[in-house]
This record gives sequence, structure tokens and C-alpha cells, in this order.
Amino acid sequence: MTPGRPVPPPLARPVLPAATPASAQGAGLMAAAYGAVSEDSGLVPLTLARRAPKADDVEIAVEFCGLCHSDVHATRGEWGNQKYPLVPGHEIVGTVSRVGSAVDEFAPGDRVGVGCMVDSCRECDSCLDGLEQYCENGLTGTYGAKDPRNGDAITQGGYSSAMVVDRRYVVRVPANLDPAAVAPLLCAGVTTFSPLRHFDVEPGDVVGVVGLGGLGHMAVKLAKAMGAVVKVFTTSEGKVPAALELGADEVILSRDEDAMAAANRSIDLIIDTVAAPHDLNPFFRTLRVDGALFQLGLPSEAMPPVNPGALIRRRIAYAGSLIGGIAETQEMLDFCAEHGVVADIELVRADQLNEAYDRMVAGDVKYRFVLDTSTLQAPAEEADA
Amino acid sequence: MTPGRPVPPPLARPVLPAATPASAQGAGLMAAAYGAVSEDSGLVPLTLARRAPKADDVEIAVEFCGLCHSDVHATRGEWGNQKYPLVPGHEIVGTVSRVGSAVDEFAPGDRVGVGCMVDSCRECDSCLDGLEQYCENGLTGTYGAKDPRNGDAITQGGYSSAMVVDRRYVVRVPANLDPAAVAPLLCAGVTTFSPLRHFDVEPGDVVGVVGLGGLGHMAVKLAKAMGAVVKVFTTSEGKVPAALELGADEVILSRDEDAMAAANRSIDLIIDTVAAPHDLNPFFRTLRVDGALFQLGLPSEAMPPVNPGALIRRRIAYAGSLIGGIAETQEMLDFCAEHGVVADIELVRADQLNEAYDRMVAGDVKYRFVLDTSTLQAPAEEADA
Repeated sequence: MTPGRPVPPPLARPVLPAATPASAQGAGLMAAAYGAVSEDSGLVPLTLARRAPKADDVEIAVEFCGLCHSDVHATRGEWGNQKYPLVPGHEIVGTVSRVGSAVDEFAPGDRVGVGCMVDSCRECDSCLDGLEQYCENGLTGTYGAKDPRNGDAITQGGYSSAMVVDRRYVVRVPANLDPAAVAPLLCAGVTTFSPLRHFDVEPGDVVGVVGLGGLGHMAVKLAKAMGAVVKVFTTSEGKVPAALELGADEVILSRDEDAMAAANRSIDLIIDTVAAPHDLNPFFRTLRVDGALFQLGLPSEAMPPVNPGALIRRRIAYAGSLIGGIAETQEMLDFCAEHGVVADIELVRADQLNEAYDRMVAGDVKYRFVLDTSTLQAPAEEADA
Repeated sequence: MTPGRPVPPPLARPVLPAATPASAQGAGLMAAAYGAVSEDSGLVPLTLARRAPKADDVEIAVEFCGLCHSDVHATRGEWGNQKYPLVPGHEIVGTVSRVGSAVDEFAPGDRVGVGCMVDSCRECDSCLDGLEQYCENGLTGTYGAKDPRNGDAITQGGYSSAMVVDRRYVVRVPANLDPAAVAPLLCAGVTTFSPLRHFDVEPGDVVGVVGLGGLGHMAVKLAKAMGAVVKVFTTSEGKVPAALELGADEVILSRDEDAMAAANRSIDLIIDTVAAPHDLNPFFRTLRVDGALFQLGLPSEAMPPVNPGALIRRRIAYAGSLIGGIAETQEMLDFCAEHGVVADIELVRADQLNEAYDRMVAGDVKYRFVLDTSTLQAPAEEADA
């Protein structure tokens, strides 16, 4: 096992006070938030009415929320059919402020996390197998989704001072990790952890990582912590030092045909985090027999065709993977606690969100922006959503 | 377990006499054969000089050889760089006529088989793992390949009265199976058996089969024998009765959108045997979470692009698979013996080979032609190859 990277010291940061006293279980609360009110509004201050905790609910005073590229797509209406106002955010860390009567696994003051889903059907084979992310009846996304157990209200995400989430979709944040740097683990972390675990990566396995953004940098750290030899593929020579600094054992310039030929048949598993169309065939040739390439990013335009011969000649699998299940998310956090793994982040204030979005689109972030929710304005008396 | 299909009675057919007496270990022999002498020659009678058995060699009096579609491509030069004369054939069943001094696992009179390869490096990880078909240094194909252990001679295949093959690449044909109908198992059988086994198909699993030719019909029979529920996809309503007759539990018309929608999320594993470009995305939608589609045929033109979303949303794998290893080929034959599985064949004489090729190209065969080598002419005194 390669030792994990050093653990950053926890921030000396007070737990946000619960927006309503823990005794007032009957009332919902108003939460300060930032969200979009139309496709071209950018992000503006909003107030959300959060429901009073039901028996199974956990009310969370949000401290930090990571900025995921999908937040940009959703708030800008790039995926269509978006209802506004929309408060994004699904990389959420905070502390429990109140719990419902049936909740005994969480108590006020506990540090917890919420990721990309806040509910699922809980009945299908996938849900029963702990694969809620593949719920056959459709998971309930943390924002912008109809919430069937709550009157089909549209869910609103973590760029807000408070959330109310069913206990089954809340995970525990280990105490030894910087909570701001944990936030991105709830999406970028588990999205890369899940295929690494599914492939059963063991010490000495060779893992390739394509793309070095929010997901890619987590894939490097997690694969290293699992003891793998990590090779990063990048199109840009400028990213070589950063990749090595993250722990990569080797960096391969994917447009250099000689370098790609030298990597022939050398890799067991490739985690491909690039969400733009790109030719996978040169990457297949770097895989060993029974190797696999997991694509995690979904380009909006068609990918170039796959050459089946590349798959046939080495029994290679081209697979996809979507976030991770709830139990697996907890397993990932515990793994990160054991190995001292967190995201590399840049904290932003609420009034910097629009600039941060522009920088994300330009690829100018190492490697994840995280919103500090203490910079949200106080909520208005009347809710916008 | 669904019971295997009835075993056809063994043909009452004399074992071909060895072309040279078993005592004459020092001399090679002349074998009667059919092969191509140029791209447009069609198949013509030829005489092959077969080497004298070396210490590890098994000399085989060939009885039957299946006609595989790749034989057509190779003899017609459609894969380029073809040396002539070329005798095709890699679905070979015969009886041992002589053995080398180091061979003790086979004896004259044993019924044996040879498939798509007659050698490999025996040293790489794949070879050491019994995955000779993925030999890192390149397997030696049964015909049309340079044979490095035999002076780089070009290998010549099974449309001939005799073969000489290293014992490591010879398998044993079970006595209870019709040897003519066993021949196609050596390629079409193991090519479909291997991914079914690799995916670990169990009773009750649902297996889809795309295409109902030589490979497809074997996939149906083998999956049924493994206890799977089998759904056949076909573009042609006319093939429905034939698919049901082979044992399919259901036939889905793949151009019928309603039928495809009804099959949504119902299949664990798809064996895709179609070697022409076709859109895989509708098939991915019929797979369950963690399902896989194994493509076995290699189209000469590009396939339509894969939609990665289909893979991501259910953690589906799009994989390839190439024939099978030698030990696995023996395992397949033993499995077929236990379950009474053989190919559905039409026996042809040597002088019918060209017509059979035209019928294969037209898809007019149920489901495999097999050459009866007793219809080959006597070899000439001088070899053509």
C-alpha cells in the first residue's frame, strides 16, 4: 500500500447554529440560498422554505457545498426542462441541527454529508442491493427533481444554509478530515471510488486516469490510496507537474503516438473522466487482457465509434458507472479517513459563485470549488421556493 | 437446469485409415486438400505436404471440418496480405494416426479436435493463464499464419485429409457426440461458450442472443444447457420458428420498437454474433444493472457510436471476446457431451465447397456447413504447399 497523502488540519470553524431551536420540531425553516431563477439569470440570493423534519428526517445546517460541473449545466438549462428557481449543489457537508422522532443514528451536532440523491424507491432490486444510484424507478436527485415522498415538490440543493433529508440518504463525515475538503467526496469522490472498488483494484494494479479535473484528481488520489500504480493521460504537457504532484507515477501525453504505443498493454483499469467526445480506441490499446475502461462523464455530443476489434482481441470491457450507493458512499468516506484522502479545493464566497462557474467552464480550478455557506445572506421572511 | 437437446446418434462411419502406417514416424505425408490459389480462384483440389511428426506432434486423419465465415474472407483475400495457396478450415475433427515420441496423452485411433490455433508463445501471462487466444506475442492461426516453431512455414487448415499439430493444441472429442456435428464446436462453439462462462451464467439468468447464424445458434443451445432463459433478437420475422425450435424461450424482433421497449431491463447478458455494423444502443437498453454485451463478430466497417449514457446509467459493460483457450475448449466439449449439445449441420462434399461459400454469404445455411473429408480426391505425388 502506498501511504495516503497528509491529512490537512481540520478548520477551526464554529458549527453553524441551527436555524430554529432543536426543540421546535413542528416548524420548518427558511434557508438562505443561491440559485438560478432562469436560464440566463446566473446565481442570485434566494430564500428556501425547508420542510419541518418528518419522523425519518435529518435537518442539516450546511457548512460547505462543492461546485460540480453538472450544477453549471442544470442552472443554465443546458439539460432542458429545468424548473426555476433552482438551487444547485450535491456535495454537501454540514452538522445535524434537528432529527425526526424515528432517527436514532444521528444527533444534533453530528457532522454529516449528503451527495447526489436524497431518495429512491427503496423497493427495487437495485435499491435492495445497495445500488440506489441505479434505482429502477428513478432516484430522487438532490436538486431539480420531483420528490414523490414530499408532494412532488422540486428538490433544492446544497448552496443553502439548511437541508432536510431522509436519514437513509445521509452519511457520517469522519472527524479527522477537513469538512470543506470532504464536500467534493460526496460526488467526485464516490463517482471515482465506486468503479475502482467494483473492479476490485488491488495493490500493484495499474490504473489509468483520463482527464485531471474534479473527478480525475480524486481518481488519482483514491487509486494511489488503494495501492495502485497510477498513470495519468493528459493532452497537455502543462499538466504533467500537477499530475505528478497529485501522486501519479507516470504521465502519458495522449496525443503523442510514441508515448501511447509505449503504454501498450500496460494498464488494468482506466477511469475516464472526460465529458467531451473523444476517441477511446487509443486508450483500449493501453489495456491488458481483461482490462476495463469505465467512462464516467457523459458528453452532450456523440462519441467517435468504438472499434470492436480492440475489445475482442483482449476481452476488454468498455463500461459506465454512475456515482455510488449510500452504503458505498459511507465506505468511501471511511476509506478516505483511514488514508487521509480529501479533495484539493478552493473555497469561494456566495458572491463569487458566478465567477467560479465561468472559471469551471474555462477549466481554471485545482480541482474543486467549495462554497462556504457562512457567506450566504440571511434568509428573507418569505420563501422564493 | 433445462435438459439438453437430444443427442443425435453417432454416424456409422469408418475411421479413416492413417495416410501412412503408424510405424513410419520418420516421414511426412501428402494430404489431399481443397484451397484457394488466388483471390478469385475459388476452392480447388490441392496437395499439401504435412511434416513428419516431431516429438510433441499429433498427426490427425481429418474426418470433418466446419466451414466458418472467416474461411470465406481469408480465401477471397478480403482481409488482405493473403499468401496462396491457402487451405482454410479451423473446425477440425479427426482421429489420431501417429504421435511423436513425447506424446502420451493421445494414441492412434483417438478422436480429437483442433480449433482456431495450432500454437502460441507458451510463455506470456495469457498463455500461462490458459488464455492462449490472447497470447501477447500472437497466436499461430490454424491456417494462413507463419508458424515460428516450424521454420515460419504458412499453416494450412482442415479442408484436408491430414493435419500435424502440437499436442498442446489438440483436444479430445467425447465419444457420445456425432463427430461431424462436433466440428463447429471447435470455433463457433467455444467462441460462444467462453463469454457465457466468463460472465458465469447460472440457471435462471436471462441471456440474449443477437443473430442466428453459426455462432448464434450455438449460443442459444449452450445458454439453454447452462439453464438460462434465452431471448433471441432477430430482424426477420421468418426466423422466429427456427429460433424457438432451437430452444429460445422468446424471440424479439429488434426493429419493433414496442417489442424492444417491452424487453427493457430484462436481460443479464447479451451474446452479439452479428458481424455487420449495427446500432448497439437499443440492445443496451434491454440489459439489467451490471449487465454485459459481448460482441463476437468483427465488422469490416465502423459500428455506429455507443451512447455512454446507456452504459453509465446501469453500469453496463460492452465487451469483446475471442474464441477460447485450449483448456476451455476441452471444458466446452465435455460440457457438450454432458448436455448432448452439438451444432446443427449440413454435410457437404469437397466439390460443393464453392456453392456452400456462396450460400453462406447469402445466409442460406442452418446453421453450419461441414466438409466430409472422405470426399477429397487422393493427394498428388507432388505438393502444392
